[in-house]
Amino acid sequence: MELTIYLAGEIHNPWRNEIREEAVGLALPITFTGPMEDHDRSDQIGEEILGSQLSKIAKDEAASSINNLRTQILLSKADIVIAYFGEQYKQWNSAMDAATAIAMSKPVIIIRDEKLHHPLKELANKAQVVVETPEQALRAIAYIFE
Amino acid sequence: MELTIYLAGEIHNPWRNEIREEAVGLALPITFTGPMEDHDRSDQIGEEILGSQLSKIAKDEAASSINNLRTQILLSKADIVIAYFGEQYKQWNSAMDAATAIAMSKPVIIIRDEKLHHPLKELANKAQVVVETPEQALRAIAYIFE
Amino acid sequence: MELTIYLAGEIHNPWRNEIREEAVGLALPITFTGPMEDHDRSDQIGEEILGSQLSKIAKDEAASSINNLRTQILLSKADIVIAYFGEQYKQWNSAMDAATAIAMSKPVIIIRDEKLHHPLKELANKAQVVVETPEQALRAIAYIFE
Amino acid sequence: MELTIYLAGEIHNPWRNEIREEAVGLALPITFTGPMEDHDRSDQIGEEILGSQLSKIAKDEAASSINNLRTQILLSKADIVIAYFGEQYKQWNSAMDAATAIAMSKPVIIIRDEKLHHPLKELANKAQVVVETPEQALRAIAYIFE
Amino acid sequence: MELTIYLAGEIHNPWRNEIREEAVGLALPITFTGPMEDHDRSDQIGEEILGSQLSKIAKDEAASSINNLRTQILLSKADIVIAYFGEQYKQWNSAMDAATAIAMSKPVIIIRDEKLHHPLKELANKAQVVVETPEQALRAIAYIFE
Amino acid sequence: MELTIYLAGEIHNPWRNEIREEAVGLALPITFTGPMEDHDRSDQIGEEILGSQLSKIAKDEAASSINNLRTQILLSKADIVIAYFGEQYKQWNSAMDAATAIAMSKPVIIIRDEKLHHPLKELANKAQVVVETPEQALRAIAYIFE
Amino acid sequence: MELTIYLAGEIHNPWRNEIREEAVGLALPITFTGPMEDHDRSDQIGEEILGSQLSKIAKDEAASSINNLRTQILLSKADIVIAYFGEQYKQWNSAMDAATAIAMSKPVIIIRDEKLHHPLKELANKAQVVVETPEQALRAIAYIFE
Amino acid sequence: MELTIYLAGEIHNPWRNEIREEAVGLALPITFTGPMEDHDRSDQIGEEILGSQLSKIAKDEAASSINNLRTQILLSKADIVIAYFGEQYKQWNSAMDAATAIAMSKPVIIIRDEKLHHPLKELANKAQVVVETPEQALRAIAYIFE
Repeated sequence: MELTIYLAGEIHNPWRNEIREEAVGLALPITFTGPMEDHDRSDQIGEEILGSQLSKIAKDEAASSINNLRTQILLSKADIVIAYFGEQYKQWNSAMDAATAIAMSKPVIIIRDEKLHHPLKELANKAQVVVETPEQALRAIAYIFE
Repeated sequence: MELTIYLAGEIHNPWRNEIREEAVGLALPITFTGPMEDHDRSDQIGEEILGSQLSKIAKDEAASSINNLRTQILLSKADIVIAYFGEQYKQWNSAMDAATAIAMSKPVIIIRDEKLHHPLKELANKAQVVVETPEQALRAIAYIFE
Repeated sequence: MELTIYLAGEIHNPWRNEIREEAVGLALPITFTGPMEDHDRSDQIGEEILGSQLSKIAKDEAASSINNLRTQILLSKADIVIAYFGEQYKQWNSAMDAATAIAMSKPVIIIRDEKLHHPLKELANKAQVVVETPEQALRAIAYIFE
Repeated sequence: MELTIYLAGEIHNPWRNEIREEAVGLALPITFTGPMEDHDRSDQIGEEILGSQLSKIAKDEAASSINNLRTQILLSKADIVIAYFGEQYKQWNSAMDAATAIAMSKPVIIIRDEKLHHPLKELANKAQVVVETPEQALRAIAYIFE
Repeated sequence: MELTIYLAGEIHNPWRNEIREEAVGLALPITFTGPMEDHDRSDQIGEEILGSQLSKIAKDEAASSINNLRTQILLSKADIVIAYFGEQYKQWNSAMDAATAIAMSKPVIIIRDEKLHHPLKELANKAQVVVETPEQALRAIAYIFE
Repeated sequence: MELTIYLAGEIHNPWRNEIREEAVGLALPITFTGPMEDHDRSDQIGEEILGSQLSKIAKDEAASSINNLRTQILLSKADIVIAYFGEQYKQWNSAMDAATAIAMSKPVIIIRDEKLHHPLKELANKAQVVVETPEQALRAIAYIFE
Repeated sequence: MELTIYLAGEIHNPWRNEIREEAVGLALPITFTGPMEDHDRSDQIGEEILGSQLSKIAKDEAASSINNLRTQILLSKADIVIAYFGEQYKQWNSAMDAATAIAMSKPVIIIRDEKLHHPLKELANKAQVVVETPEQALRAIAYIFE
Repeated sequence: MELTIYLAGEIHNPWRNEIREEAVGLALPITFTGPMEDHDRSDQIGEEILGSQLSKIAKDEAASSINNLRTQILLSKADIVIAYFGEQYKQWNSAMDAATAIAMSKPVIIIRDEKLHHPLKELANKAQVVVETPEQALRAIAYIFE
C-alpha cells in the first residue's frame, strides 16, 4: 500500500521538510504533494500565464484560479491531508483546504501549537487527529502501515 | 419558492441585521439561520451541558462538538450560505463553513472589504459571488426571485 | 404530487408562454422557473449590483456569477428541465444547463426544430425525450400525472 | 503523478497538436484523449456498425449513441478537461462535455478568443481557468507538476 | 410521516387494488404511484405525442423514452418500491425498476409466488423483503407506522 | 424549522420517555421515531407476516428483513440520530444504526454511562456529541433551535 | 488505457467467446469478467460452501448471496457492461445487472435479436448502445480505442 | 484482478491466520489489512504519540482518533470486509466497521457461530454473506476469482 498525502498550509517555515525527512527515515511508501511553496510565484502565476491584469483583484483572481486548479487535482488524488496552522497570516486557504478534504471524506490531521486551539476549535473537532508537531503527524501516519 | 440562508462568520458586528431588514423590506420568503451569536454562550456551551472539563482544550472540544452539531444541521438545511469576513480574529471556522458549503454544492456569497481580497483570494475564487456589502449580497439573492 | 420545471434556453421567442398556458389549460400542478428573460437585465446585473467594472470581460464575469447563482438554485429545485434550442445565437449556456441537469440525474426534454438535430445529436442522445414543439413537451409531462 | 486530460471541442483546427507538442517539449507525464477527430467517421459510425438507418435522424441517433459511449468512458477516466471554443459551428457537444465534467467535479480549462467571451460567459464562470491559447492552457497544467 | 410507494410490475392483474384497499382500510398515510396501467396507451404514447414513426422499433423507442420519463420522476419521489412478478411476459422492465430502486438505496419489497423464486433468486437477495401476497407487502409497510 | 430524530438502541429502559417529555416541556418542534419497542413483536414480526419458518435462523432472517425495512425508512428521514448504549445485551444493531447514520452524514449523539467509554471509544470518536444522560442529549438538540 | 468489461446475461450460448476472440483479433487491451458460466455450479454454490439447506428457497438464498457477492465486486470494477438477452429463460438477473450498471453511471451495451425489442424497450432506452450481434458490440468498444 | 480485504473484529483468536493461510494455499492475489492486532498498543497509541492525557476518557479519545484514522484509510482501500464476531467483549467497533462498509457499498461477509445469530440478525440481514468459519469466508472469496 502506498499513500499520497497533501501538506496544506503555512509555506514560511520548514515543517514540510521535517515530515518528509521523517518519512524517508522510516522508509514509508508515501508521496507528498502540496501548494506552490514559493509565495511570490503563487501570487504572480496568474499574470505569468495570462498576462497583465487590470487591477490587483483581477490579478488575484487570475492567480487563485490557477492555484485552485492545482489544489483541486492534488487534493482529489490525496489519501490524507495534513494541515499546519501557525500564528501569522490569515491562513483562510489552509482552513478551506482542510474543510474541503473533510467534506470529501478524506481524513485530516491538524498540526498546531496548543495556544492556537481556541480559534481552531471547530475545525479541530472535525479533523480526525490533532497534533502539535510534524513528527507526531508522521507517527500517526506510520501507525497505518504497521 | 422559499429559501433558507445560513449566515456564516463574524458575530461582532450587525451585518446580519442589515440583511434581515433588507429581506423584510423586499418581502422575500427567506428563512435565515446562523451560528450562536452570543460569543460567550458559544464558548461555554460544552461545560454548560456536559459539566466542568479538565482543561481549556477539553472545554473547547466539548463546546465545538455542540457548535458543530448545530452548524451541521443548519448547513444541511440551507440553500445558500452567505459568509462575512472582517479584519479581526482568525475566522477559521468561517472559512471552514464556506468551504464545507461549497463542497456540498451549495452556492456561497462572500462579503468582504476590498482590502481583504488578497488573503481570501482562493476562497473567493471558489465562491459563487463576492460582494462588499450585506446589501449587495441580499440583492443578488433577490434576483433569484425575480 | 407537484412538479417544478426549469425552462432553459432561448429568451427571444414566446415558447415559455405556450407551455405555461397549456399547463394552465390542463390544470397541472406545475411551478415553472427559468432564467432572467429580460436579456438586457441579465447582461447588466453584475454592474447593477457590484458597480462599474474595468472591462467588458470583467462586466461579463460579474453578470455571469449572479446569473449562475440564480440558475444553480433553480436547477437544484427542479424535477425536470425543458431546454429549447433555436437557430440563432450560440446558446452555449442552454447546452450547459441541459448537460448539468443530466449529470444531476434530472430528466431533460429538448425542444428543437427537426433541422437542428445534427448539431444537437450528442445532447439529444443524452436527453430523456426530444420533441419539436412546446406543446409536445407539455404533453409528455402531462402523461406523468395520468 | 500522471494526469489524463480530455481535449474537448473543435476538430477542424490543429489546437490539440499545439498542446501535445508543448507537453512533449516539457516532458510532462500526460495522456491526452479526446473525441474522434475524423468528422466524417464520427458522423458515419452509427451506420458503419449498425447498418443503414431509416432516416437522417435515426442515423444521427445511431452515431451519437456510439460517440457518447466513447466520451462517457474517456471523460470518466480524465483528471482534467480542456475545451476549445471557436467561431464556427454550434459546438453544443463541446458545451455539453465541459458542463458534464464540471458537474462531475473535474476541473475544466476553457480556451477561447477574447471576443467569444460574451456568449461563453456563464460557462466561463463555471470553468476553473479561462485562457486564450492552447499554450496558456498547457502552462496552467504544467504548474500542477512543479 | 407520509410515505410514497411506487408499485412496479405486472399490469394485467388487480394486485395494486388489493394493496390500495388494504391501505385505505388501515388508514395509512400512503400515496401510491406506478406505471401507466393501460397497456395499449403505454405502447402508443410515443406516436400519440410525437406522431407516426418509421418502424416498430422507432415507435418503441419513442414510447419508452416517455414511459421512462414518467418512471424516473415517480421513482425519484418514492420512499419504497413494491415490485410484483407474475408468470407471464418477460417483465424485464419490472426487474429494471426494482434494480434501479435498490441502486438508489430505496428499499424494495418483491411479491412473487413461491414457485418463481428460482429465476428471481438474485433479485430477491438484493430486495429488502420478499413476500407472496400483496397483503403481506402492505403489512410490512404498516409495521413502519406502528 | 422542524427536526426528525431517530432514537436508536436499548428498548428495555425508559430513556426515550425522558427525551420526549423534555422536548414537550421545551415545546421543541421535534418528531421522534425509533425501532419497534415491543421486543417480542420485533422478534416475531417475520413469522407474523410471512408465516412459520423452518428454523430459528430463518425466523430471525424474516424478522430482521422487516425490522431493517422499518429502520431504513426512518433513518433516511431522520435529521439526527440519538443512540443509547447500556450495559446489557450485545447491542450490535445499535452500533450498526449509529455507524450507518454517520456514514450517511447524519450527526449522531451517543448517550452512555462513563464506564462504557472504553468499548465505545471508536464509535464515540466518530459521533458528533457524547453525553451521559438523555437530558444532556436533548439540551444539545435544543441549542440548535436557539 | 485498459478497459474492464463485464459480460452479463445468457450462459447457454457461446456469445462471450465471439466477443473475446474478436478482442484478441484486434489486440484490444480488455479484461473480460462475467458471471459463473457453469449453471449447475452457480445453483449449487450456496450448499457447496454453507452445507445443506432446509428448503429449496433457502438453498437459492444461499447461492444467490454468493453469486451476488461475485457480481457486486466484478460490476464495481467494470468500465462497461455488455448484456446479452436471448429468447429463453426469465433473465431477470440480466436485467438487474444492466439496470444496476446504468444506475452506477456505467455505460451498458445491450445485444438482442431485433424481435426482442418490444419487451426490452424501456431497458434499451436506458442503455447507451443497442446492437444485434456480439461483433457489433465489440466494434463499438473498439471505437473507443481509436 | 487483485482484491484488498479488510479483516475486521476480534483480535484475541487466530481466525485471521486461517484466512491468510487458506488464501496462500489457493494462491489467490489478495492483500489483507485489518486493525492493530496488539490490543495494548491499540489502547496506548494515543498517549504514545500525543503524550500523557488528563483522564482515562481523554486517553481513549486520543487512541481512538488514531485507530479510526487507520481504519478509515484501510476501509476506503478495501474491496471487501470480512467481520468476525465472537462471544466475548462488546465488539461495538466491529459492528461499526461492518455497518460503515455496508453504507459505503462494500460487500461484507460475517463470520459467526450459529448461536450468535439472534443478536446479530439485523447486521446479518444487511451483510452480503453470513458464514460460520473463516474457511467458508475464504471459499466465497475464491469463487469470485473462478
